[in-house]
Amino acid sequence: MKMFFHYNWMVREDWYRWCEGLTDEELLQRRTGGQGSILKTLFHIADVEWSWIRLLEGKDDFQEDFEGYNTLRKVRELDAKFRPEVESFIANWDGSMEHRILKSEGRDGTIDIDQWGEVMRHVIAHEIHHIGQLSIWAREMGKEPVSANLVGRGLAETK
Amino acid sequence: MKMFFHYNWMVREDWYRWCEGLTDEELLQRRTGGQGSILKTLFHIADVEWSWIRLLEGKDDFQEDFEGYNTLRKVRELDAKFRPEVESFIANWDGSMEHRILKSEGRDGTIDIDQWGEVMRHVIAHEIHHIGQLSIWAREMGKEPVSANLVGRGLAETK
Repeated sequence: MKMFFHYNWMVREDWYRWCEGLTDEELLQRRTGGQGSILKTLFHIADVEWSWIRLLEGKDDFQEDFEGYNTLRKVRELDAKFRPEVESFIANWDGSMEHRILKSEGRDGTIDIDQWGEVMRHVIAHEIHHIGQLSIWAREMGKEPVSANLVGRGLAETK
Repeated sequence: MKMFFHYNWMVREDWYRWCEGLTDEELLQRRTGGQGSILKTLFHIADVEWSWIRLLEGKDDFQEDFEGYNTLRKVRELDAKFRPEVESFIANWDGSMEHRILKSEGRDGTIDIDQWGEVMRHVIAHEIHHIGQLSIWAREMGKEPVSANLVGRGLAETK
């Protein structure tokens, strides 16, 4: 579980650096699928990760719009603001939390019942899925995307 | 670990069914990024999963080209042929295997040293990443992609 979060943070940082080579127009350009632009997809990844962890902690969710975070710098600052709380939660994760129940309100007002272990894996898969989308957009721009390889990153020590 | 594999197999099956609504031309149409077409990307996902498991088992890799598997039916048959061995390996996975060492020859001839736990997570992330790519291509075709949600699939029982 922990290794996947470290993988995601490492890949996300690689993408932030990759984004430094783009103009604001390229970062915000409307694209098909995902969250509709490169920067909004990165904002969404950080937002969703933090929001689910907040839900597990029984705390308030993040409700702000992307409009307030429409530069690379602002998204990175927001991510950096969220990170210590997420890191702390992940560092303190242990197997005994796996089957705890989270009840949350779905988009249609019904109550979803999920185990914490499902939520954690959902958050992990959520980011990897969106990063896959960024890789297509990168190729469509004629650019080489960040490597998605998990092996070769020295992650075994972070599990 | 196991829940992620069950998630991937479920999502992959959803995509196979989604592909039933496409023509052979659409499945094979050259697209930007990923493995260059929808069907070849699905072939690649099944191939890579099986090949890494075979490496961990110390057995021969799969070396055949996509050219022999260029229909949806053939890819599904190949996947079904691989699956029992992969399922058996995953079912028998336990934490004691986590730090075992795999030495494998990288593309440039150097020897890569990975822990089995890294390899397993690499295989999981590999599929999710490529599925994210398919979701962009689906939107570009004006079609709704398969849901990537991990929660809500009743996966907690398969871990």
